[in-house]
Amino acid sequence: MSEPVVVVGGDAAGMSAASKFKRDAPDREVVVFEKGDWVSYGACGLPYYVKGEVETLADLVSVTPESFIEERGIDLRTNHEVTAIDRDAMTITVEGPDGEFEQAYSDLLVATGARAVEPPLDGMDLEGVFTLHNMGEAADVRQYLGLETPTVDYGEAASEYAEAEDPDAVGIIGGGYVGVEMAEAFAHHGLDVHMFEMLPHTLQPFGAEAAATVEDHLRDQGVTLHLDTSVDGMHGDDRVERIAAGDEDVPVDLALVGVGVATYAELAADAGIELGPTGAIATDEYGRTNDEHVYAAGDNAEATHVVTGEPDHVPLALTANRAGRAIGMTLAGDPTPVGEIAGTAAVKAFDLEVARTGVIDEDQAEEAGFDPVSVTITAQSRAHYYPGGEEVQITLVADRESERVLGASMVGREGVAKRIDTVATALHAEMTVEQLSYLDLAYAPPFSPVWDPVLTAAKVLDGKL
Amino acid sequence: MSEPVVVVGGDAAGMSAASKFKRDAPDREVVVFEKGDWVSYGACGLPYYVKGEVETLADLVSVTPESFIEERGIDLRTNHEVTAIDRDAMTITVEGPDGEFEQAYSDLLVATGARAVEPPLDGMDLEGVFTLHNMGEAADVRQYLGLETPTVDYGEAASEYAEAEDPDAVGIIGGGYVGVEMAEAFAHHGLDVHMFEMLPHTLQPFGAEAAATVEDHLRDQGVTLHLDTSVDGMHGDDRVERIAAGDEDVPVDLALVGVGVATYAELAADAGIELGPTGAIATDEYGRTNDEHVYAAGDNAEATHVVTGEPDHVPLALTANRAGRAIGMTLAGDPTPVGEIAGTAAVKAFDLEVARTGVIDEDQAEEAGFDPVSVTITAQSRAHYYPGGEEVQITLVADRESERVLGASMVGREGVAKRIDTVATALHAEMTVEQLSYLDLAYAPPFSPVWDPVLTAAKVLDGKL
Repeated sequence: MSEPVVVVGGDAAGMSAASKFKRDAPDREVVVFEKGDWVSYGACGLPYYVKGEVETLADLVSVTPESFIEERGIDLRTNHEVTAIDRDAMTITVEGPDGEFEQAYSDLLVATGARAVEPPLDGMDLEGVFTLHNMGEAADVRQYLGLETPTVDYGEAASEYAEAEDPDAVGIIGGGYVGVEMAEAFAHHGLDVHMFEMLPHTLQPFGAEAAATVEDHLRDQGVTLHLDTSVDGMHGDDRVERIAAGDEDVPVDLALVGVGVATYAELAADAGIELGPTGAIATDEYGRTNDEHVYAAGDNAEATHVVTGEPDHVPLALTANRAGRAIGMTLAGDPTPVGEIAGTAAVKAFDLEVARTGVIDEDQAEEAGFDPVSVTITAQSRAHYYPGGEEVQITLVADRESERVLGASMVGREGVAKRIDTVATALHAEMTVEQLSYLDLAYAPPFSPVWDPVLTAAKVLDGKL
Repeated sequence: MSEPVVVVGGDAAGMSAASKFKRDAPDREVVVFEKGDWVSYGACGLPYYVKGEVETLADLVSVTPESFIEERGIDLRTNHEVTAIDRDAMTITVEGPDGEFEQAYSDLLVATGARAVEPPLDGMDLEGVFTLHNMGEAADVRQYLGLETPTVDYGEAASEYAEAEDPDAVGIIGGGYVGVEMAEAFAHHGLDVHMFEMLPHTLQPFGAEAAATVEDHLRDQGVTLHLDTSVDGMHGDDRVERIAAGDEDVPVDLALVGVGVATYAELAADAGIELGPTGAIATDEYGRTNDEHVYAAGDNAEATHVVTGEPDHVPLALTANRAGRAIGMTLAGDPTPVGEIAGTAAVKAFDLEVARTGVIDEDQAEEAGFDPVSVTITAQSRAHYYPGGEEVQITLVADRESERVLGASMVGREGVAKRIDTVATALHAEMTVEQLSYLDLAYAPPFSPVWDPVLTAAKVLDGKL
């Protein structure tokens, strides 16, 4: 116990673990190495910074490095990259501003997160081609668009990226979360937005039914969708000027590539830490890897899915925070499971709320041994006579044999993002469709019809079973 | 089977039962007797009609009598009052516009609902003193205030009630749902609102913590609260002019009495149908009374509470609709439970959403054999950096020994009314506080912090167990 607990990576999982550990075991030492400048920041807020609803990057920070160090007593070192783990010696190699050194650990948490996938496309290195996975990239995008990037007190440098000349049009490659959120941000700044998605639908994890409704809305908002369309490359003279996709050649001033995230698992894998079937680090219910002194949490780690019972990799913020906190408790002496995931997620797409939980995809359900059956219904968000109600579209999926609820997606202008939690809770409880249909949910004319849309979906699906 | 199924009462429970029965057993006959003009109307919408957000009373009707008769094939008789049940003969006595007659039944559903309690106060019969439990009363209130009561095509007569002269102030006796909703309606019309509540807090079912926050908001909206104050009587010369309560003598032009509802159980009780401990009709899981051919559903019937497992009486719309529908299925040959209740409810109080589920009251919890422990927390409705977030206050109650969640209340300007459903679902699943704290709930910056307020409340409460 003489060596400190060491954490690699200072975002959600790492800082949650360090904070909880130090709080529960104040006499012990915890060291966090973060290779960048920023710790504990809300990457999910980057699109809203680009849009301008969040004024400065510093606003996205929950807790500053100073207060981690001074108030929480964590030995936090930013700009320190961990380059190797020696599990036999129980040390890591660290490259810091003053050179390389070794650091011993009693227990190690690998919380290295994920990075934006950079697809092997022509023109990825052109000026004006961006991914959006960290603070600096978001500042660069604003700078390139000629938007203000206000400098604030703490650690935030104004971007020195080039500026485009009178940008008119942007191409978004990838119709996932980031693509949809950035479409809203770019449109807000008056740009023509082209979105390229190689699959038939955007927002793949939300299922075709929700996606189709989102796509109608994106088009209504002026976004040009290029679905089922593989991008061949980006072209231009130094700067990106065109996106080529099959027969199409779309002039753009900026390209945002958002085709998913890849785990930073190399550090662990190189040290012989086992990866799971998803390519992320395999862990047990306490977040422990195949080495009893090495833990993994956050976007680089697998977690158990409540519906399939199998390891899955769904890199989302709550999973990272929760696993980090649990590992902090475990390392402080109170063994605490990291919890299971349902893949619950929400996204704002212009004026729509879109949400999902569980297993929606038919192939995924079949792979997990289920015989999926689903319905899609629309219902009102309020009592029929109360003004301002909106349509809520729900797709509910169940297993034909066990009649267990497997998952759901929802889309609508109000009452969607948190309504999904009812189904998420039902998934944790392994409820059947009939049990879901019998829940006593809240009713009041301004907030719901008598039969909440979730109940209506469950009744209709129950009728098909 | 030669005699029809007969339903007494044409609102939520009765019409749900008749509709579902006729749909599932189209060859059989169902007769509904309703003593008033209106069937299947949303009484919960009456405050919004008085406020003016719902234009006509007819807007509150889900399905018209004509379409029940013509499209759904239900023999619906409005203005027919059932005055007696002869269980041996399996007949009822009906008083209709053309006199009294007997009607035989194969099975009978008593869905007579509830009425507003009329407390034994001086002045209850003065002009300008109202309860609000049916369509006519709502029209009378508007008329008395000199507001339009537009007549529409179907069955709706303009109110012929008197008009007050330049009404300035109203007194609301009772700080329950109706009182709070009507305070908003009256304030909207520029009236000074005085609310009298004999208990220390308004909104008793929501618990003191939620109520205190609502009360601050009511005062901010200009409502004068007289808490812990028993009204002695209403006084005036023909018309109500003053409300007397202890030392206070408050001048008013209108008084609204909303001190709760009483079941219409007399018809059943007089026929020897057993009432339960709450005074409402006792039923089994299929809604059947102590007579195998007599069912009861809706505001006059008990239901089993998911938390206590005991019969309870919570007259709310979903319970009535659900039980009616289930009894319709049972009578059509498919035995279907009416379902259990969690007492989940929501109410809008000016700009606040207020919601509750389960057992919140300490005494009620102890009576049911629990050792209640609770926390009250406040959290944000959105990510800290996303604009427009509001405080959400949650009180979460659990049993100390089993660590099971017993109930919750919530209050805030957004994200409350449907967030309660997460806890309601957890109650149905008999989750512990720890299980609740481990739910994978939706996160996106515009809709929730990473840790949903429900999870935060569960974590804090778990720390106390």
